[in-house]
Amino acid sequence: MFHLALVVCSIWVKILTFLNIKQLEYAALARRATQIQKELSQGVRKPYKELTDVCWGDPHSLGVKPLTFVRQVLAACVYPELMSSHKLPLDVRQRAQWLLGKCEGGSIGSYPASAGIPEIIQRMSKSIARRDGGVPCNPENVFISPGSQWSLTVTSLLLTSLNDEAPLRTGILIPVPCHVTTITSITSLGAAVVPYFLSEEHGWALQVEELQRALESAKGGCNPIALYVINPGNPAGYVQSRKSIQEVIRFASEKRLVLLADEVYQDCVYGKNSEFVSYKKVLAEMGPPFSDTVELASFHSVSKGFMGECGLRGGYVELVNLDPNVVNYISNLNYDTTSVLAQFALDLMMNPPRPGDPSYPLYNQVRNAVNAICLPGLSCQPVEGGAFVFPRVFLPPRAIQKAKEEGMQPDTFYCMRLLEETGVLITPGCEYRQKEGTYHIRYNIKNKLNSILLPH
Amino acid sequence: MFHLALVVCSIWVKILTFLNIKQLEYAALARRATQIQKELSQGVRKPYKELTDVCWGDPHSLGVKPLTFVRQVLAACVYPELMSSHKLPLDVRQRAQWLLGKCEGGSIGSYPASAGIPEIIQRMSKSIARRDGGVPCNPENVFISPGSQWSLTVTSLLLTSLNDEAPLRTGILIPVPCHVTTITSITSLGAAVVPYFLSEEHGWALQVEELQRALESAKGGCNPIALYVINPGNPAGYVQSRKSIQEVIRFASEKRLVLLADEVYQDCVYGKNSEFVSYKKVLAEMGPPFSDTVELASFHSVSKGFMGECGLRGGYVELVNLDPNVVNYISNLNYDTTSVLAQFALDLMMNPPRPGDPSYPLYNQVRNAVNAICLPGLSCQPVEGGAFVFPRVFLPPRAIQKAKEEGMQPDTFYCMRLLEETGVLITPGCEYRQKEGTYHIRYNIKNKLNSILLPH
Repeated sequence: MFHLALVVCSIWVKILTFLNIKQLEYAALARRATQIQKELSQGVRKPYKELTDVCWGDPHSLGVKPLTFVRQVLAACVYPELMSSHKLPLDVRQRAQWLLGKCEGGSIGSYPASAGIPEIIQRMSKSIARRDGGVPCNPENVFISPGSQWSLTVTSLLLTSLNDEAPLRTGILIPVPCHVTTITSITSLGAAVVPYFLSEEHGWALQVEELQRALESAKGGCNPIALYVINPGNPAGYVQSRKSIQEVIRFASEKRLVLLADEVYQDCVYGKNSEFVSYKKVLAEMGPPFSDTVELASFHSVSKGFMGECGLRGGYVELVNLDPNVVNYISNLNYDTTSVLAQFALDLMMNPPRPGDPSYPLYNQVRNAVNAICLPGLSCQPVEGGAFVFPRVFLPPRAIQKAKEEGMQPDTFYCMRLLEETGVLITPGCEYRQKEGTYHIRYNIKNKLNSILLPH
Repeated sequence: MFHLALVVCSIWVKILTFLNIKQLEYAALARRATQIQKELSQGVRKPYKELTDVCWGDPHSLGVKPLTFVRQVLAACVYPELMSSHKLPLDVRQRAQWLLGKCEGGSIGSYPASAGIPEIIQRMSKSIARRDGGVPCNPENVFISPGSQWSLTVTSLLLTSLNDEAPLRTGILIPVPCHVTTITSITSLGAAVVPYFLSEEHGWALQVEELQRALESAKGGCNPIALYVINPGNPAGYVQSRKSIQEVIRFASEKRLVLLADEVYQDCVYGKNSEFVSYKKVLAEMGPPFSDTVELASFHSVSKGFMGECGLRGGYVELVNLDPNVVNYISNLNYDTTSVLAQFALDLMMNPPRPGDPSYPLYNQVRNAVNAICLPGLSCQPVEGGAFVFPRVFLPPRAIQKAKEEGMQPDTFYCMRLLEETGVLITPGCEYRQKEGTYHIRYNIKNKLNSILLPH
C-alpha cells in the first residue's frame, strides 16, 4: 500500500538525474555546438553558414509549420473577437465556441476543473474508442497532464511505491535502444532498469525470447513489475505488428507485469505495410482472461505526432485494469498543472477536421506530407514510424582508436566530426544504449534537412 | 543537506491533503450548490434564476473581461498570420514578433529551454528592478513555474528537507486568516503550521508581538524555520506599510527565519493611502546586515492581479540570499512544466504597454477600473488590496445553536442559508482559521455582483 510520507519526489529527482546524465556524452557535443554558433556569429569561416540541430523531436524548432486549423482555433479561443470576422473558417469558429463554452465565464483565463475540463476528457475518450474500432474507453480512466513524460513518471512512481515493502527494489523492463529521459525517469524513482535488446537485424523487432532472457537476468537483483514498450519506436523507427503486440501482452499476463505503452508516435507511421494498432485494442481483441486482467497504461502527447506542439505542454495517460489505488491517486495528479490551451490542443489532436469541414482539405494535405527519407551510405533498418532514424555506423579501427585517445565513445567522436565539418548536430547512439561493439547515430527526420545528412 | 531519496513528493501529498481538507466545511456548501444548479436546470422555482459563485479568485469565471492587449499579443503568437493585417495595433504586433523571436524556429510549438526562455526571464528581472526603484534583480534568481502555489510548495519542500535531520519537525509561521491551500501546502510536506493572528481591530495588521508570541508557542513542538506573509492580504484585504515590513524583516533576521513573501496581489491595491512596497525593496533599503543576510522568497503569478489569467498556469519566485543548495535545486524545477504561452503572459504582465504605445489608453482604462466596494450591514475592515473581502458576521445565539444542531460551523450555516435564499455561494471564515468565537465570510470582489451580497 501507499505510504505517502515515503513517496519519493519523482519530479525533482528525475530532473536532477536527467541533468546529470545529459552531462555525459551529449554534453560535450552540445558545448562544442554552442562554441561553433558563437564562432559563426563572430564571422569565423566554416564550410557551413549555420548550425543545424536535429537531435530532438521538436519539429517546429526545425521549421516545420504548425497546423493551420489548430492555431486558428487556439487563436480564436485566446482572442474571441477574431470570431466576429468571417476570415476564419466556419468549423474553426464553431470549434472555438464549443471549447470556450466549456470554460467558466467562457474564458481560457478561468481555472479549469482540477482534474481537467470534463467535456474535453469525454470527447477524448470517444476519440480513443473510435481509434480502437469501438473498444470502449471510460473517461474516468483518462488523465491529462503537462506531457506524456510527466504521466509516465508519476505512473511509474505509483507502481514503485506500491511495491516499496518488497525486499528487492522495483524493476522495469526497457528496450535498448531507448530514449535517455525514459531511462532516467525510471532510475530516478529508485527503480532498476532491466534492459531488453531490440533485434536490429529484424527491423528492431521486439522478441519475446529476449524479454524472457531479460527477466531471467533480473532474478535476485530486482523485482520486475512493469514492462515499458514504445510503439512506434524511438529512437528506432519500427512499428509493432498486431502479432508482436499479442505476444507481448501474453508475456506480460504470464509474468504479471504492468504494460507501460508509450504510444506518442501513433500518428507517425510511414511504412507502406505498417499500421498503428494500439495495445488497448489488441488487448480487447484477445478477450478474457487477458482483456480484464492485464494492466495497461497508454501514453500520448500533443508534442509528438504530426502536431508537434511541444511548447503547449499537454499529454494524457489512459489506464486499463489498473489497481484502483493507482487510478485514484493519478486522478488527482493534474491539479493546477495543465493549462487550458494544452487541454484544447488535446481536443484538437484527437478530433481533427473531418471530410466536408472547411478546414479539412488543407489539414489533410499537411497531415499527409511526410518528408521523403534519404539515407544512402549508412546501414539503416526501414523507418516505419516515429520521428527519428537510428542508423548503424561502421567505423574503421583507426577512428575507434582516435576516439579512445580523445576520451570519447566512438559514435560521439563521429558526431563531433560531423558537427565540425558540416555544422549538423546529431546524437550518438551511446546515449540510448546499444549492443556492445555496435555504434549508431540518431536524428530527427521531421525536417527539411535530411539530404545533408550523408556520411563522408 | 539534501537526501534525495527522502525528499517527499510534495506535489502529490499536497494535492491529496488539499482535497481531503476541502471536504470538510466548504464541501457541504459545494455539494448543495451543485444540487441547486441541477434543480434550477430542472425548472424548480427559486427566488433567483442562477447560481452565483464568488468563492474563488477567478475573475474571468465571473465575467471579468481579459485585457485586450494581453489576448491580442497571445493570439498573434499562436497564429502569426494575424500580424500580416493591420487590425492589430503596432505595439501588439511588435511584442508578438519579439516573443516569437525568442522561440526556436519562431514558434510557440517548440520546446522552451528547460529553465524557461532566457530573454523573458531577463526582461522579468529588469521589470522587478524597475518596480523596486532600481534595486538590482539577478535573472539567475528568478524561476518560472506553472503557478505561485507550485513555487511556494517546492520552496517550502526544499527548506523542510534541508532540516530533515533536526530532532523536531520543521515549522512555518502562517497568518490567521490564511488561504486553505497555503496551509495544506505546508502541512502536507510534513511541516507544522505555527499560526499568528492578524489583528482585525487594527485593519488586520501584522504585529511583531504576535509573531513573538507565536514563535514562543512553537517551542518544544517544532523547529520554526520560515515565516509566510501575504501582502496584499488574502482573505483579508490589507496592504502592509513599509514600517510594518521593516519590523517583519527585523524579526526574521533576529530569529533566523526565511521570509516567504506571497506578493501575488501586488497589482491589486485600492486603498487611497495604500501603496504596495515589495519585501525585496524594503530589504534593500535597510542595508547590511539585513540586505545581505535575510533569506527571502517572493512569489507572483499571472492568475492573480489585474490579469487574472488563471487558465494559463504561470508564475514565478524570486530568491534573495537563499542557501545556494536551494537555489540550485529550484533552478531545475521548471523542467517541462510551464507552457510557452504562460511564459509570454509573464512577460506581458511585467512589461505592460507604456504611455505613447497604441495599446496604452485602453489598457490603462481597464487597469484602473476597480469595482466599487459596497458592504453595508457587515463589519468589515477597509479593503486596501487583494481580490477578497473577509467581513466579520455577528450571528445571533439562536443561529449558532441551530448551526450546532445541524453539525455545521456557525459561519458555514450562514453561507448555506445565503446559498439557499439567494443562490450566492461564498466561503465560510472557518476555512481560513479565525479567532475563536468570531465568524467571517470571504468572497471575491473582482466581479460585478457586489451589490447583491448584502446580509438579510
